[in-house]
Amino acid sequence: MPKPPLPEHLQDVLARPNPAVIGTVGPGDRPNTVATWYVWEDGRVLVNMDEGRRRLEYLRQNPAVSLTVLDGHEWYRHISLHGRVTTLHDDEGLADIDRLSTHYTGKPYARRDRGRVSAWIEVESWHAWSGGRPWH
Amino acid sequence: MPKPPLPEHLQDVLARPNPAVIGTVGPGDRPNTVATWYVWEDGRVLVNMDEGRRRLEYLRQNPAVSLTVLDGHEWYRHISLHGRVTTLHDDEGLADIDRLSTHYTGKPYARRDRGRVSAWIEVESWHAWSGGRPWH
Repeated sequence: MPKPPLPEHLQDVLARPNPAVIGTVGPGDRPNTVATWYVWEDGRVLVNMDEGRRRLEYLRQNPAVSLTVLDGHEWYRHISLHGRVTTLHDDEGLADIDRLSTHYTGKPYARRDRGRVSAWIEVESWHAWSGGRPWH
Repeated sequence: MPKPPLPEHLQDVLARPNPAVIGTVGPGDRPNTVATWYVWEDGRVLVNMDEGRRRLEYLRQNPAVSLTVLDGHEWYRHISLHGRVTTLHDDEGLADIDRLSTHYTGKPYARRDRGRVSAWIEVESWHAWSGGRPWH
């Protein structure tokens, strides 16, 4: 599987507010997937979750993640990033979720009554597919 | 997490050719995610992959899967299905991939020179989200 950095044109795709699904491993070696907002920044990925998510617990036990980003224009073109959560911290003042929400919706995050946690993912390998073949 | 059967209106969503991402667990307890076609049939899920995919090896070791289906109309509405591959078999005559391809594209699968393998997933639990809250 290729290592970073990703080609420029794929980084351009990642920079857009695309649909994405994050995969983690939970108890009993079971996979867990869920749709997520993300932001791509200089080869790293920011995601953010409610402080009550079980996913947080799993990530503390096993920081390995896989993120599949679907091209918003044609979902069967997709980029999967494999990596590891290297930083997990409270989202003070909800600055990070506001950044994600603004990226996707143009507005700050509506819900202000729950704490959030941010995770930065370091990408270790990736692959990209387009219509069932490698996407170059 | 709720158990099957899913409510009718969510089954109606699953019956459509939606974007979806499947998660499996690979060597070293690392998650693997990739976009996939699927067909929902009476509470089970059919997926299909090239005979050369490493995912196949992983599934033989650990049949647990997670499938996140994005609502084609509004991707932040999504349904995640957790289950287990109970049947894994060669796709004789490419009948299953043709079924999937026809569901998504209206046409049989173009590539005929590679073997394919089908997997049936039994759903053990699920959850559905809409805009960051449970989707009822």
